[in-house]
Amino acid sequence: MDINKEILNLDWKREPYGLYEPIEYTLAAGGKRVRPQLAMIASQLFGGKDEEVLPAALALEVFHNFTLLHDDVMDKADVRRGRPTVHVKWNENTAILSGDQMLIEAYKLLSGVPADKLPKVLQLFNKMATEICEGQQYDVDFESQEQVAIEEYLKMIRLKTSVLLANALQTGAYIAGADERAQEVLYKFGIHIGLAFQIQDDILDVWGDPKTFGKAVGGDISCNKKTFVYLEAVRRLGDEAMRRKIKGDEARPATEAKSLEKWYSQVLEDNTEKITAVKEIFELLDVRSACEKVVEDYTRKALALLEQLPQNEATEQLRQLANKLNTRKD
Amino acid sequence: MDINKEILNLDWKREPYGLYEPIEYTLAAGGKRVRPQLAMIASQLFGGKDEEVLPAALALEVFHNFTLLHDDVMDKADVRRGRPTVHVKWNENTAILSGDQMLIEAYKLLSGVPADKLPKVLQLFNKMATEICEGQQYDVDFESQEQVAIEEYLKMIRLKTSVLLANALQTGAYIAGADERAQEVLYKFGIHIGLAFQIQDDILDVWGDPKTFGKAVGGDISCNKKTFVYLEAVRRLGDEAMRRKIKGDEARPATEAKSLEKWYSQVLEDNTEKITAVKEIFELLDVRSACEKVVEDYTRKALALLEQLPQNEATEQLRQLANKLNTRKD
Repeated sequence: MDINKEILNLDWKREPYGLYEPIEYTLAAGGKRVRPQLAMIASQLFGGKDEEVLPAALALEVFHNFTLLHDDVMDKADVRRGRPTVHVKWNENTAILSGDQMLIEAYKLLSGVPADKLPKVLQLFNKMATEICEGQQYDVDFESQEQVAIEEYLKMIRLKTSVLLANALQTGAYIAGADERAQEVLYKFGIHIGLAFQIQDDILDVWGDPKTFGKAVGGDISCNKKTFVYLEAVRRLGDEAMRRKIKGDEARPATEAKSLEKWYSQVLEDNTEKITAVKEIFELLDVRSACEKVVEDYTRKALALLEQLPQNEATEQLRQLANKLNTRKD
Repeated sequence: MDINKEILNLDWKREPYGLYEPIEYTLAAGGKRVRPQLAMIASQLFGGKDEEVLPAALALEVFHNFTLLHDDVMDKADVRRGRPTVHVKWNENTAILSGDQMLIEAYKLLSGVPADKLPKVLQLFNKMATEICEGQQYDVDFESQEQVAIEEYLKMIRLKTSVLLANALQTGAYIAGADERAQEVLYKFGIHIGLAFQIQDDILDVWGDPKTFGKAVGGDISCNKKTFVYLEAVRRLGDEAMRRKIKGDEARPATEAKSLEKWYSQVLEDNTEKITAVKEIFELLDVRSACEKVVEDYTRKALALLEQLPQNEATEQLRQLANKLNTRKD
C-alpha cells in the first residue's frame, strides 16, 4: 500500500473552500510520511491487515500536520517544506481555524478503525495528543527560562517528538493484535528513535549542508533556541574536565561561556557573524561529536529493542528506517 | 446533579501550568451551561442515568469553550463574560495552544461514555464539530462578501450555533436509549431553539439593556456585522411593500439604503453616532418587531416538536429552557 498516495487521495474539495483548501495545501506539501509508515509497518510486523490500520495511519499524518500548522503560527515561521506557510499564504485566522478542523479530521479518520479496537486506540491517541501539547508548552516555557537542564530538554522532545512516533507504532501493533509486551517494546523503540531524530535535527541545524537541509542553517542559533547542541555546549563549559582539556589557557572556558551567553542574549537582523561565532565555540568544545554519539546511542538502544520482536520483513524495514532517519542530511 | 459544579470540579492543576491555567480560567468564567444541561435533560427524558451521559455533557461544555477561546483570538475580542480574554491576559500563542488542548480534552471526556455507545457518540460529535468550524468559516467569508442572503445567514447560524445544541440533545437521548425518531425530534428542537437563540442575540446587540447585556450594545453595528437584524433591514429596503408604507416620501427607502450602506462601509474610532443612525434606520423599517416575530416562530416550532415526545418533568424543563433562552435580556 502506497501511504503517500492514500494521503494525497483524501478528498478536500468541499465547501467552504476557505476552510478546506489550506488543509489540502498542507497535506500536499509532502514530507517523509514517517508516522503513517510506522503504523503500517508495526501492523505488518504482526500480520495485520493494511486496511484495518490505514484509518489510524492517516489520522496520525493529519494530526502531525495540524501540529505543524499551529506551531508555524506560534513560531511565526514563514516557510515549511519550501513553501509559504498557511498563515503567510492566507492569514493567521485561516491557519487557526483550518488547523482546528484538521485536528477534528484526525479524530474522524481515527474513528474508522475496527469498532472493538476504537476505545483503546482513542485513549492512546488522546494521551499522545495531550503530551504533544504539553511538549510544545515546555518548548515555549524554555524560551524565557534562563537555565534548562539537559534532562528537561530530553523530556520536552520526548513529549514533542517521540510520543507521536511511539504512538504510531503501538497503535499499528495493537490493531494487528500484538500483545501488550510487544506493544510496549515498539513504543520504547519509537521513543528512542524520536529522541535520536530530534537531536539529529538540532545537529543539522548547525552543521547541515545548506544544499540538502530543508531550512536555513543556523536558524536555531539565530533565534537563541536552547537546543541539545547548545545545552551540551553549556554543560561542557561548566565541566571541570573540559577546563583541563583546553590547555595553556585556563581562562578560556570562562571567556567562551561569557561569549556564548552574550550571543544568545541578542536578536539580530543579520545573523551571519553570530552563527559563525557560536559555531566556533561549539567546535572548540567538541560538541558535534558528543551530540552525534548521543544520536548513535539512542539509535543503538532502539535497534536492540527490535531483537525482542518477531523477525520478518517489517522488522528489517524498522531497522532501515531507524538508521536512515538518524544518519539523514535533511 | 449540579452540572455547573461538575464542570468547576474538573481538575486542571497540572504541569505545564502555562497550558492548563488558561483552560481553568476559561471554564471558571461561568456562562449558562446550556449545552451540558440539554444533554442531561435529554437523557432524563428517557430515564437515562446521569452518570452515563455526564462525560458527554462535560465534553460539550469544554468543546464550546474551546470554540469561544479560538473565536476570541480570531475576532480580537478583548472581553468575554466580563473578564479579559485569554489572548489578552496571557498572549495569542497561549490562546491557540490551550485552545487546542481543550479540544483534545473534550475528546478525552467524550471517551468516558459507555463503550458500546462510543462509536456513534464520537461520530455525531465529529460531525457537529466539523459543522461548527464550517459555520465559523462562513461567518468569516460573509465579512468580505458584499451580499448575504437571509438563507445563507440562517445556514451559517445553524452550523455555528444550532448544531451544538442539537447534538447535546441527541447525544443525551441516544445514551439514554431513545429510539432514532425521538433523537431526530430532539435534534430538530435543538436546531430551532438555536436559530431563535442567535437571532435573539442579534436583537439584543442592538436593543439590549446596557445594564443587563453582557457585551457592549451596538458591537455588531460598530464592526459592520451582517446580522439577521441588518439583513432584514436590507431586505425591507428592497421591498416594494415597504416603499408604499413609508408614505409621502417615495425616495426615502433609497436614501436610507444609501445611508445604511455608507455607515456599513466605515470603521470608526467612536461609534456613538453610527450606532444611533443605524438604529434609527432599523426602527424606521420596523425591523425589531419583524425579527422578534422570527424568534417567536422558531420557538413555537420548537415547542410543537416537544409534543411528539414523552411528557414528564424533563419535557417541562425543555419547555422552560426554550422560553427562557428566547425571551432573555442578556
